[in-house]
Amino acid sequence: MSVAWLDKVQWTADGLVPVIAQEVGTNKVLMFAWMNREALRLTAETGQAVYWSRSRNRLWHKGEESGHVQKVHEIRLDCDEDVVLISVEQVGGIACHTGRHNCFFQKLADTEWVIDQPVIKNPGDIYHRE
Amino acid sequence: MSVAWLDKVQWTADGLVPVIAQEVGTNKVLMFAWMNREALRLTAETGQAVYWSRSRNRLWHKGEESGHVQKVHEIRLDCDEDVVLISVEQVGGIACHTGRHNCFFQKLADTEWVIDQPVIKNPGDIYHRE
Repeated sequence: MSVAWLDKVQWTADGLVPVIAQEVGTNKVLMFAWMNREALRLTAETGQAVYWSRSRNRLWHKGEESGHVQKVHEIRLDCDEDVVLISVEQVGGIACHTGRHNCFFQKLADTEWVIDQPVIKNPGDIYHRE
Repeated sequence: MSVAWLDKVQWTADGLVPVIAQEVGTNKVLMFAWMNREALRLTAETGQAVYWSRSRNRLWHKGEESGHVQKVHEIRLDCDEDVVLISVEQVGGIACHTGRHNCFFQKLADTEWVIDQPVIKNPGDIYHRE
């Protein structure tokens, strides 16, 4: 499989690209993360979102622990070719590690951040670390 | 006006935060940019999106040249408090400097990036630099 399309992406000095994950159908923004070249290649080839975890410094197959994988419907690149937008079906309906549908659950109301999305599943029940 | 809410944002070492701008109604992702503390404060206070231009190294009132300002309906913060999502009404229906509705007009089709959005207005007719 040709990977010349990966060369079009303007990677940061660290070899990363910011990625916005959006839900197919609702178009809600689920999360924001980063990919390196290998992560983007795997995302395209496997049809499931694979990110680069900057905190763990390794590839991160979204849902590898939780089962909440993201099935990729579309991969887009912006005008400057330095931001990726993916449309995904969020398995389990939970994209956020807090157990919420998406990560953007804090809304600015006047001068305060207010949480306006429920926890669907307790993180302790999602992640079973030994 | 209290600005304590700005302290909750986890700014990068450069004092910036990544910002996703989404269209009210359609939920389409229009663009991705950055804000510093002043830009986010002005965005909240004026109700129009103000970004930090990393290339021009100055505040960038979106639409200052083109008239295509973004009227802000909502400001959100993610779980890690290091990404901002704003919902905006895109005046003129053109968010991208290429004259397209949004910046994500390149779609990966097999192994090629294909443009699937029309230019609504020629950039030469949008920007009138003397």
